Amino acid sequence: MSGNGTTTPSGLRLNPNERREHILRAALEAFHTKGYGQTSVRDLADAVGMSIAGMYHYFAAKDDILFAIIESAVDRLLAELTAARDSAETPEARIRTMLAATVRVVVENRAEIRIQLDNADKLAPERRETIRDRLRESVRMVRAEFEQLQLAGQLEELDLNVVTFAMYGMANWVYHWYDPDGPVDMETLTDQLAEILFHGVLK
Amino acid sequence: MSGNGTTTPSGLRLNPNERREHILRAALEAFHTKGYGQTSVRDLADAVGMSIAGMYHYFAAKDDILFAIIESAVDRLLAELTAARDSAETPEARIRTMLAATVRVVVENRAEIRIQLDNADKLAPERRETIRDRLRESVRMVRAEFEQLQLAGQLEELDLNVVTFAMYGMANWVYHWYDPDGPVDMETLTDQLAEILFHGVLK
Repeated sequence: MSGNGTTTPSGLRLNPNERREHILRAALEAFHTKGYGQTSVRDLADAVGMSIAGMYHYFAAKDDILFAIIESAVDRLLAELTAARDSAETPEARIRTMLAATVRVVVENRAEIRIQLDNADKLAPERRETIRDRLRESVRMVRAEFEQLQLAGQLEELDLNVVTFAMYGMANWVYHWYDPDGPVDMETLTDQLAEILFHGVLK
Repeated sequence: MSGNGTTTPSGLRLNPNERREHILRAALEAFHTKGYGQTSVRDLADAVGMSIAGMYHYFAAKDDILFAIIESAVDRLLAELTAARDSAETPEARIRTMLAATVRVVVENRAEIRIQLDNADKLAPERRETIRDRLRESVRMVRAEFEQLQLAGQLEELDLNVVTFAMYGMANWVYHWYDPDGPVDMETLTDQLAEILFHGVLK
């Protein structure tokens, strides 16, 4: 095994960014299957073929790895929401693409979300606040579009927060029940959620 | 301090059921403020004025107390859903009262839900399964009403699971954002969520 951070156990050479990603993927797998508390830095070092000293070059502590996993999932949500919003012309179309983006990110990041839900109490308060701030930003992005609909007189007489969190709640709840290999494909899921939402909130 | 389980620190006499409730309330408070991991059985015994031996008469281990707190919140949800369902005549009215009951239980049991979310991984697998089974039962109760609407031809062309979890998601998500002391009162909240849902799903 190599402690210099440049090769995998199979001998593949990695640059520092790839190495960091490699550690995060191995940690995601280990935290998901064995649990965060049951995984040691030694286990992770072994999994990626590095020494503990080599690991410290990338992450000084296990909770830095936990934070990096959660942060990267939340950043992916924000990036996809931004791309979705910027791809559409009207507030309604923007909300529709943002709903689809949220569902997609939730479905494709189930392992990260599970780790976040199970271990939120293990993050330092300021890091929890960082994650919460970015999630609040994702809410503000959606709310701003509903506000446009309201200003244009297209929204029913509904509180903007209730509408925004109704959308956010139905989109995020797919984490708890939706199986992408089950009878409802993801396009049908997002179409039907959008139908429920827009029939429900638009005049 | 008394170890016989019949008096509180203030000298109030309690029967065994009241004593059990007293322990659970003290544990809820301690787990909520200090965290489950940071609360010892000794802390709880001190808080209720019992010896550790006296506590064991009610709960053999700290995770028995954790389970009892979560179980009682879930049982309250099922009891309120059943009462709500049985109080209304039509499927639509039943879903409306069940939505209001879910929101009410979530808002009034925020501490219990937080403890459940933060400590789910500390319950034994068979206990986690018990909680999951009862939550599945709550979903089945709502789904059965949507199925009645579908059979009566009143539902849009929507998958029953998507509809059920859209409702369940918006109702449960209030945990993450709704402040009962804020500008939207609980009746307005449930009325607006019901409006979004029924405009969204009914023909």
